[in-house]
Amino acid sequence: MYKIVLLRHGESVWNKENRFTGWTDVELSAKGLEEATQAGQLLKKEGFIFDIAYTSVLKRAIRTLWITLDQMDLMWIPVYRNWRLNERHYGALQGLNKTEVAQQHGEEMVKVWRRSYDVPPPALEKTDARYAGNDPRYHSLSEAELPLTESLKETVSRFVPYWEETIVPNIKAGKKIIIVAHGNSIRSLIKYLDNVSETDIVGLNIPTAIPLVYELDENCKPIKHYYLGDQAAVEAAVNSVANQGQAK
Amino acid sequence: MYKIVLLRHGESVWNKENRFTGWTDVELSAKGLEEATQAGQLLKKEGFIFDIAYTSVLKRAIRTLWITLDQMDLMWIPVYRNWRLNERHYGALQGLNKTEVAQQHGEEMVKVWRRSYDVPPPALEKTDARYAGNDPRYHSLSEAELPLTESLKETVSRFVPYWEETIVPNIKAGKKIIIVAHGNSIRSLIKYLDNVSETDIVGLNIPTAIPLVYELDENCKPIKHYYLGDQAAVEAAVNSVANQGQAK
Repeated sequence: MYKIVLLRHGESVWNKENRFTGWTDVELSAKGLEEATQAGQLLKKEGFIFDIAYTSVLKRAIRTLWITLDQMDLMWIPVYRNWRLNERHYGALQGLNKTEVAQQHGEEMVKVWRRSYDVPPPALEKTDARYAGNDPRYHSLSEAELPLTESLKETVSRFVPYWEETIVPNIKAGKKIIIVAHGNSIRSLIKYLDNVSETDIVGLNIPTAIPLVYELDENCKPIKHYYLGDQAAVEAAVNSVANQGQAK
Repeated sequence: MYKIVLLRHGESVWNKENRFTGWTDVELSAKGLEEATQAGQLLKKEGFIFDIAYTSVLKRAIRTLWITLDQMDLMWIPVYRNWRLNERHYGALQGLNKTEVAQQHGEEMVKVWRRSYDVPPPALEKTDARYAGNDPRYHSLSEAELPLTESLKETVSRFVPYWEETIVPNIKAGKKIIIVAHGNSIRSLIKYLDNVSETDIVGLNIPTAIPLVYELDENCKPIKHYYLGDQAAVEAAVNSVANQGQAK
């Protein structure tokens, strides 16, 4: 039996401003820095040790990981960054305020864009300054891999190969791993691992910087999962994420 | 022609206390944090960009790298940590004050231990709490690879294979690289690259957190090298390192 930890980054400045972020490389807020510190201290207190860390190429996840490793005195472990762990690309919504978009398009439309399985937000143009093709961190991606927008289904499609081909072999080799990623990339992995239905995935929300433990069997299929820490605080944090798309 | 950057970590708390450090995993001092910040700002101002970073498994180097990448907005580049970039192992001197050791054994003996090419400091016992064999970050090393002490010659022997087999192929592939390491691991590399004599290497001192640029030909042999920044400050920093082993 294996045990892995999934961790969404701490609050970012755009989480705080209630903006759609996606692949925009925004910083952690002061609260996010504190959340990451607490996550690291909690993992240390609970006796977790990691051999390998995986994260995205976005600084809110990388910094959350750095702070976590620092708190755990594990700065020396190998860290692998990959764009496949990035947040879902939010297309033309990136940078827009969630409440304003809800007022313009309706709460239901925003909920569909935020939480539906296969409806992507409106796409970017390739001429848009937000297009990832001009960013050196994505120079190794083919044009087909460079998203203009993504549904959760498309996020699943690009995360799962990395999970199966890179992460799972290391878990099966006995390595203790932590994945520090994003709300929707973690939802993608959970969708795949727990075979969550397209209906149920809409209601699944991941709080910032609360370690989520998955216990896996010898085939890396989930046995059970649970958040570390105070369970009432976890529930409040999950509900807070669920409510971000409301019009007021 | 290629251009790489070598960077010794910022001042550590044991640099500040004038102690022999070696493989002891000590933290940066407040001054060291500031030096690392300045190094990152200088590299950014001078237009440097990196594709890959290499560092040791010791936090004073890793943190210096993190701060540098943060300042350059390059947190997303791949980072490879390897014990072969560690500081020279200082054997039974690790933790001792350089001035006190000089008072006890004489300045000349200390200079030999600090700067000679092939005379190692007194060895640790394997039962010593400082022995690296009990540290999980070194579990992949064979017993022969785990040092009880090291001469600079032995540091060269374990660094050069990593340079030749791992770093050089990436340089030749056109990757722009930075190596954040330690006073004596950087001296080891320079000894090898510039074919410095065993006599001349004694007088070679590397200041903390001042970017050292090496320009290399198509075979990765040095053409020239220079420190970035104010040259009078560089000279003062080099002399400061040279004087650490004096009895008063």
